[in-house]
Amino acid sequence: MSDGTVIDLNADLGEGFGRWSLTDDDALLESVTSANVACGFHGGDPATMRRVCARAAQRGVVIGAQVSYQDLAGFGRRAMDVPPDELSAEIAYQIGALEVFASAAGPGVAYVKPHGALYHRVTHDSRQAAAVIDGVLIACEATGRDLAVLGLPGSQLLEAAEAAGLPTVTEAFADRAYTPNGTLVPRAEHRAVVKDPRQVVERALAIAAGTPLVAHDGSSLTVTARSLCVHGDTPGAAALAADVRRALIDAGVELRAFTDTSGR
Amino acid sequence: MSDGTVIDLNADLGEGFGRWSLTDDDALLESVTSANVACGFHGGDPATMRRVCARAAQRGVVIGAQVSYQDLAGFGRRAMDVPPDELSAEIAYQIGALEVFASAAGPGVAYVKPHGALYHRVTHDSRQAAAVIDGVLIACEATGRDLAVLGLPGSQLLEAAEAAGLPTVTEAFADRAYTPNGTLVPRAEHRAVVKDPRQVVERALAIAAGTPLVAHDGSSLTVTARSLCVHGDTPGAAALAADVRRALIDAGVELRAFTDTSGR
Amino acid sequence: MSDGTVIDLNADLGEGFGRWSLTDDDALLESVTSANVACGFHGGDPATMRRVCARAAQRGVVIGAQVSYQDLAGFGRRAMDVPPDELSAEIAYQIGALEVFASAAGPGVAYVKPHGALYHRVTHDSRQAAAVIDGVLIACEATGRDLAVLGLPGSQLLEAAEAAGLPTVTEAFADRAYTPNGTLVPRAEHRAVVKDPRQVVERALAIAAGTPLVAHDGSSLTVTARSLCVHGDTPGAAALAADVRRALIDAGVELRAFTDTSGR
Amino acid sequence: MSDGTVIDLNADLGEGFGRWSLTDDDALLESVTSANVACGFHGGDPATMRRVCARAAQRGVVIGAQVSYQDLAGFGRRAMDVPPDELSAEIAYQIGALEVFASAAGPGVAYVKPHGALYHRVTHDSRQAAAVIDGVLIACEATGRDLAVLGLPGSQLLEAAEAAGLPTVTEAFADRAYTPNGTLVPRAEHRAVVKDPRQVVERALAIAAGTPLVAHDGSSLTVTARSLCVHGDTPGAAALAADVRRALIDAGVELRAFTDTSGR
Repeated sequence: MSDGTVIDLNADLGEGFGRWSLTDDDALLESVTSANVACGFHGGDPATMRRVCARAAQRGVVIGAQVSYQDLAGFGRRAMDVPPDELSAEIAYQIGALEVFASAAGPGVAYVKPHGALYHRVTHDSRQAAAVIDGVLIACEATGRDLAVLGLPGSQLLEAAEAAGLPTVTEAFADRAYTPNGTLVPRAEHRAVVKDPRQVVERALAIAAGTPLVAHDGSSLTVTARSLCVHGDTPGAAALAADVRRALIDAGVELRAFTDTSGR
Repeated sequence: MSDGTVIDLNADLGEGFGRWSLTDDDALLESVTSANVACGFHGGDPATMRRVCARAAQRGVVIGAQVSYQDLAGFGRRAMDVPPDELSAEIAYQIGALEVFASAAGPGVAYVKPHGALYHRVTHDSRQAAAVIDGVLIACEATGRDLAVLGLPGSQLLEAAEAAGLPTVTEAFADRAYTPNGTLVPRAEHRAVVKDPRQVVERALAIAAGTPLVAHDGSSLTVTARSLCVHGDTPGAAALAADVRRALIDAGVELRAFTDTSGR
Repeated sequence: MSDGTVIDLNADLGEGFGRWSLTDDDALLESVTSANVACGFHGGDPATMRRVCARAAQRGVVIGAQVSYQDLAGFGRRAMDVPPDELSAEIAYQIGALEVFASAAGPGVAYVKPHGALYHRVTHDSRQAAAVIDGVLIACEATGRDLAVLGLPGSQLLEAAEAAGLPTVTEAFADRAYTPNGTLVPRAEHRAVVKDPRQVVERALAIAAGTPLVAHDGSSLTVTARSLCVHGDTPGAAALAADVRRALIDAGVELRAFTDTSGR
Repeated sequence: MSDGTVIDLNADLGEGFGRWSLTDDDALLESVTSANVACGFHGGDPATMRRVCARAAQRGVVIGAQVSYQDLAGFGRRAMDVPPDELSAEIAYQIGALEVFASAAGPGVAYVKPHGALYHRVTHDSRQAAAVIDGVLIACEATGRDLAVLGLPGSQLLEAAEAAGLPTVTEAFADRAYTPNGTLVPRAEHRAVVKDPRQVVERALAIAAGTPLVAHDGSSLTVTARSLCVHGDTPGAAALAADVRRALIDAGVELRAFTDTSGR
């Protein structure tokens, strides 16, 4: 692999709630460079948020706010027509709640990534995308920091973030099938999720290196992104994240958080 | 009234939730010097929090976090046996959520006051009092500011706050009956709440001046406090707060937030 | 008015939640013949549900389940993409919860009416409409009764109900503007809501009598329905409902619940 | 074992919530004769309730309502000072919600068992015990059936149930240590939970047979109960329940639901 290749590894963390656990937070924190921490609206209770932030700060993992629709019953996977002013305030509320733990434990929240149905909605819904960014801006005003926005390349969310002057970061998925034009194959479709760990690792390497991978229809496709998302809420997720990490390092890729803008 | 008498006027604000309104926030903000803003656990949705913080900052009213047990259905009035680590994290979560709005609009959250059943519980429950203060300390660490704690004189809460080195502020109630030894007459008892506006104003003046008022049993009692709480969730609350404010000013009392430690 | 004209008067009730009140339930129960009682998902706590059911049963008012998306923060006014199997179960859950109070106090839940965003969604979304009806059918199976479905004429909801063999009832709104083709003018538009009480009463009479009323564009339109909805969550709602009731009775219209299928 | 020994096996089921699973419901239903199904207040979403009821009815497992304080964040394990009228209504609400699924799938809810902190509170708090029974009575009135109450021998709950004329059923725990006078050793204490599966099975046999088991202090104690509770929310719970079931059957004990009052 060419010298100087750098990528960030992000995963969703802290997605348990009270008695219920979901993500193996400690194990995932061994592998990732950025942690998308749930903020209580789709998962993530205060005690879990506190614990995950403390552990991430210890490990030097960068903390991001994984913001969601207010929907514990649906785990934030049910799209909602939330009016912009309500959505903005809900986003800011979640970032603020996480910031108290992230900032007490380390340098604070560094970025924002929408979760579940909100993530998908703001790829195309410019009104909700703008509302999310408005919420991020409230948090920027409050913290005095420019929070980065992590999302899908070409999404309305990243467009709105850029228009607002916020740093944007694109991400790719090693375990999701892509259409020939670079969008994700919807989960409901056949073979939308790549389950073979070896294939996932291979695709992670291709994304990091900027070499082509095989699209859903068999054609060839190059996917580039500054961050690579590994899923945390499936059995074996932590082990797969560790495999991806090791393979990237073995291939000479440097794992570095996207918020770290220092040279190599 | 003796020259130099200073008092703070605080009220609970932002206690509506979504479609439901409760407190006349704008009107109360015309009278008080400190606003105890609900943080979403017993009332107070994000959009309301944002609006109240913006308006308070405009008016120069100091913002405090009115923290509560997580109990929307019971409006935080049902005492809960929350384990200390959960309670600490819940308190910090609420302060953080409010801080994002308070800090975006003005100087941020300046103090913390427990609500409802938690307020009463931490007068005597030293374990929960310590847990609340632990939560406040997380927020202090995060914001880099020493948050003050507002509570009942002699309460375990204020003791724990002092032990932690936090500024403490005592409050008194002009519309609540006192026992001869200075504790509040429980709400369930006869004449626990003073309803006659003229009496409330008289008692407010006595508390501010440090002159005796009539206790529940007819005896005489002097109640002193740096802050005076006026209730916001009853019909006519805003008008009563305005009456109290005017009477205090007319009597030469200076209304000044307790967080303002500048001389006169 | 022609002899034998019969209409039902329905209103949303029990839409407070814990400390927050909204609808003047006792006053509305003096006027309506059918009460759409909130079931806890957008409003309506258990104690309120119990009290409203007891009072409705005493007054001989028929009880219906006002079912909603699970969204207290948004008062059920934010449309949600709930998967059909979840939505069906959520609808049945709400009906069952209300049934325990309605059935302890009287003859039980007699009908179902969706609330807010769900009401509007199932006018055109056949998938969610079918899911709602599936939920109603679970409740029919459980109670051994055929629950009626109250909704907008021409809605997917009523079509699905009919296809399932359930009794359907159409409703009209005396305080909402209609387009020339009989649909409601969206709330966001100018003059969508008729605010003049005298006009509301006039329109109620026209709907009951089957005589034309003036549509939003000034043209003439005849709206017919077995039930007339009066809103309960606005100031003056109870007084307006009383006015409508009196005017209908004075005009010789018989007020009778639609579930009462006995002759006059 | 003496001929004619009969015992019921109960377990907590359906305690997942949305995305989060907890109990292995299908496996547990292979072993138990009575299922305490969560009703949404501490766990148990509508879709899960529906599925568990359907499966229980298919297997002939009797359905009970596992009612709780309203506390998803604390999984119902945080005692709450809920006023009696609110608590009664909350209990009835939960039973009603479950009844719609239990009754659509089979003979309906047969009994009620409090969960977590409420279970412990009503062993000694006569006011809350009476409130729970009031709630059960609302459900009895609604369903026209006498619901049984399952609880700890000697508890205020069972006393209140008996006073109200409801059938009561005592339960014992094969995996919990007992004090010499027959109460449970609090969970926080050393060796409060029996973890060795062989010991659990032995104790189950002793409880069923009415022979002595070893108390926490080494003394001998006879525990008798009509129902034996096996925990469902620990890893290996379903396997342990299966072991207990097999051992009981092998020892000649008849497993029969307590609601089944037919002779052998």
